[in-house]
Amino acid sequence: MQIYNAPVDDFRFVLETLGYGDVQKLPGYEDYDIETVHSLLTQAAAFFRDVALPLNRVGDKHGVKLDPETHAVTTPPGFRELFKQYVEGGYLALGHPTEFGGSGAPHAVALFINEMITATNKSFSMCPGLTQGLIEAVYHHGTEEQKQRYLPKLISGEWTGTMCLTEPHCGTDLGLLTTKAVPDGDRYRLTGTKIWITFGDHDLADNIVHLVLARLPDAPPGIKGISVFAVPKVLEDGTRNGVYCVGLEHKMGIHASPTCVMSLEDAVGELIGEPHRGMKSMFTMMNVARLNVGLEGYALADIAYQTAVAFARDRRQGRAMDPNKREHSAAADNILVHADVRRMLLNVRSTNEAMRSLGVWTSMQIDHALHNPDDAAQQQGADLAALLTPVVKSYCTQRGFLNTSECMQVLGGAGFTVDWSIEQYMRDLRIAMIYEGTNHIQALDLVGRKLPADNWRSFATFTSLVTKAIEANANNEAIADVVDGLRRALATLVELTKALSARGVDGEVIGAVASAYLDVFALTALSHQWVLQASASVGREGQFFATKLKLARYFTHQVLPQIDSLAAVVRAGKSQVMAFDAAEF
Amino acid sequence: MQIYNAPVDDFRFVLETLGYGDVQKLPGYEDYDIETVHSLLTQAAAFFRDVALPLNRVGDKHGVKLDPETHAVTTPPGFRELFKQYVEGGYLALGHPTEFGGSGAPHAVALFINEMITATNKSFSMCPGLTQGLIEAVYHHGTEEQKQRYLPKLISGEWTGTMCLTEPHCGTDLGLLTTKAVPDGDRYRLTGTKIWITFGDHDLADNIVHLVLARLPDAPPGIKGISVFAVPKVLEDGTRNGVYCVGLEHKMGIHASPTCVMSLEDAVGELIGEPHRGMKSMFTMMNVARLNVGLEGYALADIAYQTAVAFARDRRQGRAMDPNKREHSAAADNILVHADVRRMLLNVRSTNEAMRSLGVWTSMQIDHALHNPDDAAQQQGADLAALLTPVVKSYCTQRGFLNTSECMQVLGGAGFTVDWSIEQYMRDLRIAMIYEGTNHIQALDLVGRKLPADNWRSFATFTSLVTKAIEANANNEAIADVVDGLRRALATLVELTKALSARGVDGEVIGAVASAYLDVFALTALSHQWVLQASASVGREGQFFATKLKLARYFTHQVLPQIDSLAAVVRAGKSQVMAFDAAEF
Repeated sequence: MQIYNAPVDDFRFVLETLGYGDVQKLPGYEDYDIETVHSLLTQAAAFFRDVALPLNRVGDKHGVKLDPETHAVTTPPGFRELFKQYVEGGYLALGHPTEFGGSGAPHAVALFINEMITATNKSFSMCPGLTQGLIEAVYHHGTEEQKQRYLPKLISGEWTGTMCLTEPHCGTDLGLLTTKAVPDGDRYRLTGTKIWITFGDHDLADNIVHLVLARLPDAPPGIKGISVFAVPKVLEDGTRNGVYCVGLEHKMGIHASPTCVMSLEDAVGELIGEPHRGMKSMFTMMNVARLNVGLEGYALADIAYQTAVAFARDRRQGRAMDPNKREHSAAADNILVHADVRRMLLNVRSTNEAMRSLGVWTSMQIDHALHNPDDAAQQQGADLAALLTPVVKSYCTQRGFLNTSECMQVLGGAGFTVDWSIEQYMRDLRIAMIYEGTNHIQALDLVGRKLPADNWRSFATFTSLVTKAIEANANNEAIADVVDGLRRALATLVELTKALSARGVDGEVIGAVASAYLDVFALTALSHQWVLQASASVGREGQFFATKLKLARYFTHQVLPQIDSLAAVVRAGKSQVMAFDAAEF
Repeated sequence: MQIYNAPVDDFRFVLETLGYGDVQKLPGYEDYDIETVHSLLTQAAAFFRDVALPLNRVGDKHGVKLDPETHAVTTPPGFRELFKQYVEGGYLALGHPTEFGGSGAPHAVALFINEMITATNKSFSMCPGLTQGLIEAVYHHGTEEQKQRYLPKLISGEWTGTMCLTEPHCGTDLGLLTTKAVPDGDRYRLTGTKIWITFGDHDLADNIVHLVLARLPDAPPGIKGISVFAVPKVLEDGTRNGVYCVGLEHKMGIHASPTCVMSLEDAVGELIGEPHRGMKSMFTMMNVARLNVGLEGYALADIAYQTAVAFARDRRQGRAMDPNKREHSAAADNILVHADVRRMLLNVRSTNEAMRSLGVWTSMQIDHALHNPDDAAQQQGADLAALLTPVVKSYCTQRGFLNTSECMQVLGGAGFTVDWSIEQYMRDLRIAMIYEGTNHIQALDLVGRKLPADNWRSFATFTSLVTKAIEANANNEAIADVVDGLRRALATLVELTKALSARGVDGEVIGAVASAYLDVFALTALSHQWVLQASASVGREGQFFATKLKLARYFTHQVLPQIDSLAAVVRAGKSQVMAFDAAEF
């Protein structure tokens, strides 16, 4: 049983609440007024539900196959047609520049498309997802001629893209990589082995362009000696380039997404951007890519939630504790009467809707960073996007995974079977805590890089916006407890941040506390989103708004208190963590 | 890569610390002195590592097969031989009464055998596990003649057993069950459908005895009209009885453990115990069965931990923050230098060792309850076992699952592949939060039944033992912070318990807060175990004891603070949970 109806009403509410009006006025976004967006998302929702979702379990079961003779990877039945329809529906082109055939939609709109395709078919979503990453890289770092040559083919889905970063001995620490690029006329010849290459080979498109990190012969050692190359599977003259899939990983989930070992054997490539500056190019596109991984958490937790609710509506076990709620004509009551079933569902929903809201708010910052003509507004967008991205990536994937597990629990034994697919959502989601920078790397990025940058400017911006939301609702009696929860969360966050910003905090302390600190930050940011949503719901007619207010309160009283325990861990510092010798583990 | 060496030294330390000397003096346990036990466990550890573990991944990959014509289930290659060796090694007979061919070992000793077989091959472990349950049921509720007829065959492994409780429309709420038993001479004829029947059919033994819950024609409705029947697969005259496996579930994990749909078609059965008193028989054996499910959490988290440590010892990425810890002869440092890798491993280890300790302490209470000639000591054992069992079952499975996930995170992308098997441990373990009474049912059992029983007597016993440990270490400067952590945890637990024991607490409040309350209880109980272990380690020579003291401190400062957030949820009560109409989900 696979159930999903994209919450388009919530999409619209979130956009409106977070100031989409200002985004839509940015140069280039004029066509995307809220009604147009709403109708586009409604149409997309039907496509993903009817076309992408039915193939999700097929993909899991069938998996992908590698022919070791030809190095060709075959995707599951139906995936070629799905890719064709996805491209024809305009979903790949949506967020990309019109000058190269894109539709030029705001990032905040494209994010919902990514949420829906991830919820309905995460394995499949990774092919367009990686292609988006390649488009960003070429757009920001390629020459005009390279853009003309690559972007129209990638945006139209004729070609797809990959990112070839990791090698067997280096993942997190890319400074160790050894793939070599040797000049050969105006091109280069690349040799080396890359692992974890998503959609490194497949049969969905005619050509694949690999973005490969490698070292030039004169490269300095470490992270500052890495360059980026575009290495196509098929060269312009139609000959096969020396880049082959030589193995597939066998994984817990995303079975329909080929994870390839790629061998580069004197493969022809061209330099993208400046020599030795490859990591800079990588960081440019990481915000968008990491935001898209963050949404995997709430996308899969949402389809799991919808599945759990559908199951719960049918299932009768036991009796309501309150005799007035018992249905005496039946042998048992619906399980939604039980407090614990509600608790599980509300833990999921109250975090999920806030995570989506935070993801959208972050993507709106990217829109301002890229399109706002006002320098200060552009800088504020860039600052906030940089600050919030690691928070979204880490917290949403972690919490989203727990949420899918909580949804499974609602179904009892049925949830553990493949029949309801929640077990697949769990398996497919687990990798999101690892790839695109492990969650702890996100925490180090937040604490070690994003916070102190420019004299803690972006943190000051964030706290001033949160304070503004608190002050704007200071006399809003209807949500006084929700606002008060945010006030206390912010006080804790500011206290912990000050301690981390003191001079002489050593690196081991940062390593020991960064993950817990990030979670404190995330809970504060979610609380902020709930204040914004609750404030926008007060006094409005209709069940939708009444439910929003209840969810804001549930989050405040039942989830937000986690901050206190996390703060204790941050305050504990490094001493217990570093007390052990390596031999003691 | 499958890695496991049972921590036999920790087994021995836990036994000694928790007063195994008193258990061994109980009538019937005289032969099981600590040296004998240590040598038995050492030998068993080698068997499970060398024989059971290599078949674990084979079982996951191969799964089980049902022939729809013959209703016969085939287990994976090697499982028949493993069962034979398991039986010949004496592991099935170990904890059972000598009068029927068992070895009469203490429950506290048998628990380690269960931990080791679960860690090395959880799917397989379920066959002897269910058989143990059947042995308990017949031993406590069968007639002398029935015992003579069933127990020697079950204890010798000639026959195995199942529990047939759940039906398609009822799991948690067994009062709804409809399987019928009609008298037929001195036997009964049973008809109905049972689901989730573990090892309901297989090829490991000659016969299978199903323990089936059903209703007699004159049964009152609901939970008080259920009787228990023994229904063998093959009758005494060699004919096939009308009980068939008609389907297998397809599950997230435990692929080598057949989960059967069983059809009873006029099947011959005999009554075990009194008519309509079946649920009472079930509750008798639930303590042992639930304790054995609880240990699944720390058993699988332990093998995952050992795997993560083995990976970490080999893996080099990045540089130590402290320049003095850098290994300049290598291009990168071992990842054990990184605070966050340590944090993940220590979160696992500091909870795992305390969970094992709590499990063993609980099983020792069962030993006292069954064998202590002193009435008061016997009663205290029974009280504590009843109180702690739901805590162990719920908390250890939940935390154990999170721990396996944390171990996967240490490996990064490698952890998500099947190569290191952690993904299998996660999949195999997830069901433990559901079966044998969902974790929330455990919480309701604790708060609604175990706590208030006999005027809160068992809780008073528990707090007096915890207080005794605090007082005994009041001047123990070396572990002052660990003791202080327990003191504060106990204060919180007592405060919350008093609020729940006030008159007029409504059932919806109990439902809303029981799960968080159970976690507060569990963290307090784990803190108590750490005080006992730390107290036993102070002043002793050797790395083992130094590490124990560090783990106790880590737990106290980095894990125990979770109590504060959980307490806030308990104090919040039901209002946010019950505020929603069913239609709002």
